[in-house]
Amino acid sequence: MSPSTDAGADVSTGAPASGPSETDGRVVEALRRALPGRVVTDPEVLTACTADRSGHRADAPPLAVVEAREVADVQETCRIASAHGTPIVTRAAGTGLAGGAVAGGGEIVLSTRSMDRILEISPADRLAVVGPGILNGDLNRALAEHGLWWAPDPASRDISTVGGNIAMNAGGLLCAKYGVTREAVLALTVVLADGRVVETGHRTVKGVSGYDLCALLIGSEGTLGIIVEATLRLDPLPEGPPTTIGAFFDSVDDAARAAAAITAAGHRIALMELMDEPTLAAVAEHADQDLLRRGRAHLLVQCDGPGAATLAEAVVAVLRDHGGDVEATDDEQRAAELLALRRAALPALEAQGTLLVEDIAVPRSRLAETFAAIRELEAAHGVTIPTTCHAGDGNLHPTFVVTSEEIPARVWAAAEALFAHALAVGGTLTGEHGIGLLKRAWLPDELGPEQLQLQRGIKAVFDPQGLLNPGKIFAQETA
Amino acid sequence: MSPSTDAGADVSTGAPASGPSETDGRVVEALRRALPGRVVTDPEVLTACTADRSGHRADAPPLAVVEAREVADVQETCRIASAHGTPIVTRAAGTGLAGGAVAGGGEIVLSTRSMDRILEISPADRLAVVGPGILNGDLNRALAEHGLWWAPDPASRDISTVGGNIAMNAGGLLCAKYGVTREAVLALTVVLADGRVVETGHRTVKGVSGYDLCALLIGSEGTLGIIVEATLRLDPLPEGPPTTIGAFFDSVDDAARAAAAITAAGHRIALMELMDEPTLAAVAEHADQDLLRRGRAHLLVQCDGPGAATLAEAVVAVLRDHGGDVEATDDEQRAAELLALRRAALPALEAQGTLLVEDIAVPRSRLAETFAAIRELEAAHGVTIPTTCHAGDGNLHPTFVVTSEEIPARVWAAAEALFAHALAVGGTLTGEHGIGLLKRAWLPDELGPEQLQLQRGIKAVFDPQGLLNPGKIFAQETA
Repeated sequence: MSPSTDAGADVSTGAPASGPSETDGRVVEALRRALPGRVVTDPEVLTACTADRSGHRADAPPLAVVEAREVADVQETCRIASAHGTPIVTRAAGTGLAGGAVAGGGEIVLSTRSMDRILEISPADRLAVVGPGILNGDLNRALAEHGLWWAPDPASRDISTVGGNIAMNAGGLLCAKYGVTREAVLALTVVLADGRVVETGHRTVKGVSGYDLCALLIGSEGTLGIIVEATLRLDPLPEGPPTTIGAFFDSVDDAARAAAAITAAGHRIALMELMDEPTLAAVAEHADQDLLRRGRAHLLVQCDGPGAATLAEAVVAVLRDHGGDVEATDDEQRAAELLALRRAALPALEAQGTLLVEDIAVPRSRLAETFAAIRELEAAHGVTIPTTCHAGDGNLHPTFVVTSEEIPARVWAAAEALFAHALAVGGTLTGEHGIGLLKRAWLPDELGPEQLQLQRGIKAVFDPQGLLNPGKIFAQETA
Repeated sequence: MSPSTDAGADVSTGAPASGPSETDGRVVEALRRALPGRVVTDPEVLTACTADRSGHRADAPPLAVVEAREVADVQETCRIASAHGTPIVTRAAGTGLAGGAVAGGGEIVLSTRSMDRILEISPADRLAVVGPGILNGDLNRALAEHGLWWAPDPASRDISTVGGNIAMNAGGLLCAKYGVTREAVLALTVVLADGRVVETGHRTVKGVSGYDLCALLIGSEGTLGIIVEATLRLDPLPEGPPTTIGAFFDSVDDAARAAAAITAAGHRIALMELMDEPTLAAVAEHADQDLLRRGRAHLLVQCDGPGAATLAEAVVAVLRDHGGDVEATDDEQRAAELLALRRAALPALEAQGTLLVEDIAVPRSRLAETFAAIRELEAAHGVTIPTTCHAGDGNLHPTFVVTSEEIPARVWAAAEALFAHALAVGGTLTGEHGIGLLKRAWLPDELGPEQLQLQRGIKAVFDPQGLLNPGKIFAQETA
């Protein structure tokens, strides 16, 4: 595994390294004229756009932020950018974990954060039509009044937007039962780089007319088009209280095998979260709790909907068979406490340093051996890799805590070995965070040259000038 | 609505109209040399490939059928076809309803029907890896031994292949609860027109590395690549017996409103099938049953999995509220009789003439008005349009029974008006059958010029010579 074009530690955006040019000034002036009141060049705002939650930061600030309110604003921005050959980075809440919304020198930031209206909620068709800038959490609060919800449930739901969730094909805690974002989007309206509007998908559950461009756009990280409206497939809220189950195990191996056994038994659990010993140790230290006395790994399971209680009994039996110290509850307060333990993981790790959160996914039968591989990598590279895991779908977040200014070479070496393991067992570099800047160096290893060529070809069909989020997903082609 | 390039009644494949050329002979000879024992030119076999179940038939037989057994056979066929510029029509069981697998003069048929092996069943990862030629029904019988199933459930499941289901993104009876084929495919290995192999997707539930080419290939009707291996997402078989509910209504309007009310109430039913009066009349005549005395429309509902009995009670209440004469059963024998009534629809209509089965889908709230529109079209065009409907997902099969040699102009006029209605209410030309030859004239009306251009651009990226299933989905470009 050897990233061919640029090393992980040295990622740059597609932005030119030199200072503002004459063209840059003309672009900003054209934007101001065409979009009065929408163009922001306040240095603080520009600087905020050079980073997301991946830990990456562009060297220079972007030219301007266009705060779009209407589809026409997006079109106008694209027309001006196309005319001048200026790159556009679409951005909403900036909560991404892969550098996908990081903007640098010479680039326009197109913010869709203010396009946050709910245009329609149709219980009859179980769909909602929304602007891309609405927060996932805000949407779901509005939907709850109708007994409905939009299933994508990234941990960031209260701070991340629907448009961002779609651009990344976000995952979250509930995917094993409720699917990823792709399954919950019926239609997308996008603006192409040249300003033309394209409506993909349907208001119907089924539809097979031509290629599925809606599915193709989901997860395309702002590189093919700018999402300006989304028609979302809604589900009825699960009835009755869920049953929440917490279990401590003597080893992560036992916990991982218990999780795999639940999947293999065909139990349709809503949520299954695993924490390993280094993670528990961090939580214990942060919360001043003696968690390690109770076990060396923790599994949290939730069963919802019809038959939840019966299912929970079966799950508890499997957990006990694997040596789990199990507690099950349908009391709301106690369930919240059990969930809080898992939610404490990220803050506890953040308290120790800057985090590099990895995002590999592996077939669910390979969970235990993947945890074993992580322990071997810790020993081999002299690092600690606390790991949480969406065990219901085999998506792990091995996390490196960095206390130095630069990310040490041994961390990158361990991360590379981790990616190699994921690919070797039939997994992927990224289950839900995306490629962005962070993983583009390794993407060719996963896709292979033929598929990479097809993907670049598709990019060129949608965006022949290469203006939409350049340098994201694919490293810049060198002449 | 005016099909711009060719009329519906006059569709031809991409094949040249002239007789076999010198090149054709050289291609067949090259195939024979490279693939001994795999190349069939028996006139009966060739003639069988000129049709599918759409009613379309190519004017001239294809050059040869290559019966591929291995991926290498497919690659070799593609290399030879590319070298000679000869089109390839991929075909398996030939059960398509849109002319997608119809092959004509000057074309090679690449049959994947013999690539029918189950390579792996993994209960631990809830997946199976199969060759494209396996029948859906055969696969599901093998999976049942493991307590698993592959959810796509087209009515043709006993005679259609998994590869064909994927190439068309097949729907079926269970989509409202279990999703379409796209949601049940994890990974695809395809051979490109030039013989290169590309592996798309993952063995994992989640994966967001680059564009989702696996989703793009699903439903691409053999125009982008040839599926040679599929990794399928499996579900555990629902526990316990389902509850099956049959209800007669005084009018299709009542039945359609009852179906919409079940959706709007958020009930997650497995199956909901509606038959209108002309369909019931055909079944009554065919089976010599006095069905019309019981009602003028019929709704069949099935509830499965945990909580099925409770859900069934709620459904029965909704049906009675809408004037339904309702029977519910969990007796296997009686349930089979209720299902048999729905299954009798197609044979009963086939007994009356050649069928042109349409496949529009509309938002579920628009069902009642769509049936009203169909009744108006019957009056306006002097035709009868018996219609069955997957009411759980708004997918209707308005059916024209043709007794003449040619399809009458009034049938095409009514079909065009039907398509216009579907698009006007936010629906689609085709919910599950695909575009193929049959609907390509109307596709531009649904997609619009911008999206059509993107779709043609994608086609050119995958297949620059235009050799894979030319003339399907898109009408041939005229110079």
